[in-house]
Amino acid sequence: MINLPKVDTLLLKHVNGRLYITLNRPERRNAMNDQMNDELHQMADFLAKSAAIRLVILQGAGGHFCAGGDIKERKNQTDQAAQHLDPARDRNIRSGQLFKKFFGLPQTLIVVVEGSAMGGGFGLACLADLTLVHRDATLGMPETTLGIAPAQIAPYVVQRIGLTPAKQMALTGERINGDKAYRLGIAQYLADSNEALRDKLESVIQQVERCGPKACAATKNIMHKVAHQIDDEMIEFSADVFSRLNKQDEGREGHRAFVEKRKPHWMA
Amino acid sequence: MINLPKVDTLLLKHVNGRLYITLNRPERRNAMNDQMNDELHQMADFLAKSAAIRLVILQGAGGHFCAGGDIKERKNQTDQAAQHLDPARDRNIRSGQLFKKFFGLPQTLIVVVEGSAMGGGFGLACLADLTLVHRDATLGMPETTLGIAPAQIAPYVVQRIGLTPAKQMALTGERINGDKAYRLGIAQYLADSNEALRDKLESVIQQVERCGPKACAATKNIMHKVAHQIDDEMIEFSADVFSRLNKQDEGREGHRAFVEKRKPHWMA
Amino acid sequence: MINLPKVDTLLLKHVNGRLYITLNRPERRNAMNDQMNDELHQMADFLAKSAAIRLVILQGAGGHFCAGGDIKERKNQTDQAAQHLDPARDRNIRSGQLFKKFFGLPQTLIVVVEGSAMGGGFGLACLADLTLVHRDATLGMPETTLGIAPAQIAPYVVQRIGLTPAKQMALTGERINGDKAYRLGIAQYLADSNEALRDKLESVIQQVERCGPKACAATKNIMHKVAHQIDDEMIEFSADVFSRLNKQDEGREGHRAFVEKRKPHWMA
Repeated sequence: MINLPKVDTLLLKHVNGRLYITLNRPERRNAMNDQMNDELHQMADFLAKSAAIRLVILQGAGGHFCAGGDIKERKNQTDQAAQHLDPARDRNIRSGQLFKKFFGLPQTLIVVVEGSAMGGGFGLACLADLTLVHRDATLGMPETTLGIAPAQIAPYVVQRIGLTPAKQMALTGERINGDKAYRLGIAQYLADSNEALRDKLESVIQQVERCGPKACAATKNIMHKVAHQIDDEMIEFSADVFSRLNKQDEGREGHRAFVEKRKPHWMA
Repeated sequence: MINLPKVDTLLLKHVNGRLYITLNRPERRNAMNDQMNDELHQMADFLAKSAAIRLVILQGAGGHFCAGGDIKERKNQTDQAAQHLDPARDRNIRSGQLFKKFFGLPQTLIVVVEGSAMGGGFGLACLADLTLVHRDATLGMPETTLGIAPAQIAPYVVQRIGLTPAKQMALTGERINGDKAYRLGIAQYLADSNEALRDKLESVIQQVERCGPKACAATKNIMHKVAHQIDDEMIEFSADVFSRLNKQDEGREGHRAFVEKRKPHWMA
Repeated sequence: MINLPKVDTLLLKHVNGRLYITLNRPERRNAMNDQMNDELHQMADFLAKSAAIRLVILQGAGGHFCAGGDIKERKNQTDQAAQHLDPARDRNIRSGQLFKKFFGLPQTLIVVVEGSAMGGGFGLACLADLTLVHRDATLGMPETTLGIAPAQIAPYVVQRIGLTPAKQMALTGERINGDKAYRLGIAQYLADSNEALRDKLESVIQQVERCGPKACAATKNIMHKVAHQIDDEMIEFSADVFSRLNKQDEGREGHRAFVEKRKPHWMA
């Protein structure tokens, strides 16, 4: 058995190498307050060294994914900021580090978006490896309409949909539905109903599970590193990873299974 | 009142924080000659420090946006180049600096494309924050068919539509219509008629005006900086911007308005 | 006459500045073994200094483009790797260098995909300047299903279709058809039949041939260099290229032809 972290704002379910994390503040559309931020940091640190978990599914309770930062909590902190502290800056850095940790997880990260995905919730949808979206979801970056900026999520949004669509959404405050999120490339899978969303999630998970877990972690690592880098150093780095995978049990089993025309047995 | 620069090749109209700039050499489809280049430099320098203007709308007179560089003027200069001067290089650098200035404007820059947008005109369409296009417009990079290269516009085109579509257009000299420009992501808004184009422009402007001007300038700045950069330095930079916005009048008004469920009042 | 390299695994045809290279191991769906890798290196080194060739068309024999690396040959090498040698790493580096050479060819590189384009074959489709695809083709990165990673092709795939679609394909092992390859931007041209594919190839070639060969080589060079780089150094570099093109015979002929309203005569 795995000892999962103890958390209050998240529901956790572990099944056969899959960890389901449910953001669980439905009364606030799962808006991210300081506690949830801390607990997600705990989860990321736990996952970074958990070889037993191969897939992380991040979703929201109560029909919404995540409404972003908790504006009410933030409003109180902003008022304090007139004095000497700078809680907005501190919390913003901590959010940036959280996004970076989740982006870099060795596991394949799947985000399921229904209802609202705004601000930081939009950022999570943009940094997942694979995102599923309900056609009726609402996504956006409303920050500029509050006189602030989508700061820590910007790299993931720009990388996900390109600089111009990112600016178009941020500079107009436009909210989009699941259909447009799919067309923009925020989500890779689109579903028309709750049931279709669940079915699609299960089928995507099974597709991922056909692939070697170490091979997938290495592929994420290479692809994050190569984004826009084509040079000799990259060629060496990739060859080192490739060679290591070939020699490991996983790569040897994969080749054996291919030649023997059977399914490989992965050790999770 | 604002003192706008005195210019001959451009028409200027200033209304409530919006500056309309119309390229006005309709007899040459608004091709950019040295004078227009100089005057656009003047405008960019003026706008870089004009807090009273919040939105720049760049368009062309006489049914065309901009046919690119003025080939006839260029041809004369090229013939001189056989001697000691290198006017092609000088003017090319000056164009590159112009594109960089317009790309980096603190204002939200909207380009309206109807008729021709070729070469440098195509570059302007690709570097705007938001581009509207008429379905019957004609866009392209005909440089290679003249034995030259789309040089200074290349970064903006590659960033706008990706390396491969940029090469496809440049290496074949293909001209595309507004519909394809929209599908490629050159334009974010598509209109079927002149009237629809005007209506769409007004509605996009109003959408932008709902957002805080300083917040929009900061968002552009962050997004330009983050394009493909996800590291700790970027996290700190973003947090500094975020914190500053929170403390400013604009961010405080935005949060107050949100909590009080009313529209914010921005100071342009 | 041109002295083409002597090769066994490739068919070569040279016609008027066009070089057709056909991968010719149809019994293995043109899988790339060490010999083919070596011979493609020879071709790339030859093309890098061959001014007489202006266009390279890369295709496969027997109804398939390229099934990727030759798994059977690789399997034998992997088993040897238990000893001291590391042939997987060496061959992987050599593949990376091959992809880099073909990506950087001065010629315009067209790839024609029918049948299978997997692994390294998929990489070639993603690094070409222009790719044509048959609607019934099958493309994919099956590496993770073998417990290994798409290593050396990763930069070209990420650049071609973006980080997230690249991860989606690699982490699920999904195989796509020509239609999806076209929608993802892997291919720029889509054909419904073999005949349509041949016709489209001929028309694309003729479009490219309307453009100056030196101008096209310079455009590729600038666009590869600028990908995501907008700074003063880049402005200078581009202006130097632009100025050089203007002074060369090709640029002067291009401008003369434009002013005289006739087609230019390019010296290949």
